[in-house]
Amino acid sequence: MAANITATHPYYPLGVDIPGYVANTLSTQTILAIFSTACAGALLPALFLIRRAAPKLSTADLTTAMWFVLCGCIHLVLEGNFAVTHVASGSSVLNQLWKEYSLSDSRYLTRDAFMVCMETITAFAWGPLSFILVYLITTNHPARYFLQTVVSLGQLYGDVLYYGTFFHEDIYRGLEFSRPERYYFYGYMVLLNSFWIVIPTFLLVQSGKATVAAFAKAGKTGKRD
Amino acid sequence: MAANITATHPYYPLGVDIPGYVANTLSTQTILAIFSTACAGALLPALFLIRRAAPKLSTADLTTAMWFVLCGCIHLVLEGNFAVTHVASGSSVLNQLWKEYSLSDSRYLTRDAFMVCMETITAFAWGPLSFILVYLITTNHPARYFLQTVVSLGQLYGDVLYYGTFFHEDIYRGLEFSRPERYYFYGYMVLLNSFWIVIPTFLLVQSGKATVAAFAKAGKTGKRD
Repeated sequence: MAANITATHPYYPLGVDIPGYVANTLSTQTILAIFSTACAGALLPALFLIRRAAPKLSTADLTTAMWFVLCGCIHLVLEGNFAVTHVASGSSVLNQLWKEYSLSDSRYLTRDAFMVCMETITAFAWGPLSFILVYLITTNHPARYFLQTVVSLGQLYGDVLYYGTFFHEDIYRGLEFSRPERYYFYGYMVLLNSFWIVIPTFLLVQSGKATVAAFAKAGKTGKRD
Repeated sequence: MAANITATHPYYPLGVDIPGYVANTLSTQTILAIFSTACAGALLPALFLIRRAAPKLSTADLTTAMWFVLCGCIHLVLEGNFAVTHVASGSSVLNQLWKEYSLSDSRYLTRDAFMVCMETITAFAWGPLSFILVYLITTNHPARYFLQTVVSLGQLYGDVLYYGTFFHEDIYRGLEFSRPERYYFYGYMVLLNSFWIVIPTFLLVQSGKATVAAFAKAGKTGKRD
């Protein structure tokens, strides 16, 4: 039994193999406090800089720009950390944050193929593109809505597949990746990811309306091409 | 042994469980001939109808419209068939086509969670949207490039994840979903899916250029919103 202590972990399905697992050393409260502080530490200077660079930016555009600052940070730093490291065996704050979240979805610790591929694209495509989008929004650049369409659809599709595969495995194979406590399932897995359904859907519709209006207007001034 | 005959199948990894499997009754040549004939049977009337509806359509736009006719048919009919039926145990021509293709990727017969979710979205989102796009292209509608961005990015991202998960399982878990013959791996899995990397990438770039140009032009004529 002593030779097999790495199998002792709190993740579901019970007994799932998590090679190299080491337990977290930080408490849940500490991890969440560090995460919140880090987000605030990125968002506040960004808000200040954007306000200075574009004082006339509307509240709606400022809010959208701040959303993509947050997305860029989470995609590139947090999801980038998952993409390039085996978080189960690490003890950095980012690794511990993933191990906390994985209580609601163990696929992050088993390095599920879909999860690794989707998160790699989210981190290294949607991540940098989110930051470029912040620049395009603040400068009212003509490429803004095209890139907003790309990033928002990418986030939305990735998240739909994330939920889809999670529930498919549960319904058709009886594999439950979340611990049974409602707190983890609803508080982490359902709630946190729902932001990347609702907000990208809204921004995709906004991009569509703006793009169709731009083509209609450009078309009236003569031949488009 | 007689009780276990359903496990006798030609798919990889060797011995992978394919519940309810029944062997194909049609030859490879017959299946491919039926598929080619069905595609031609959809494309030729479509070509005739589009030419009649929009005689002045450029060759480039006509080609793009035909591409989306083909995509709409394949997504909705072929991939829709996979999404709603367990192809391994069926004997319809569509089921047999999937069982032939699955020699290069058995995940279609094991109903892999990612595959089912991605193909369901491809069939019932990108499929109908492809047909709407044919209409938008032939009518030079201002919504054309927005929808072209959405469908092409959706196809591209789905296909990148398809390749990504296939190779991830091979490299990190030693799971080979394709039979070892080069014909299946390169001819089916690599070649057929590569069309949905190359063409959507081209159409995405085209959409981006057209959209940025439209916003630049619309912006010059006054305030955008």
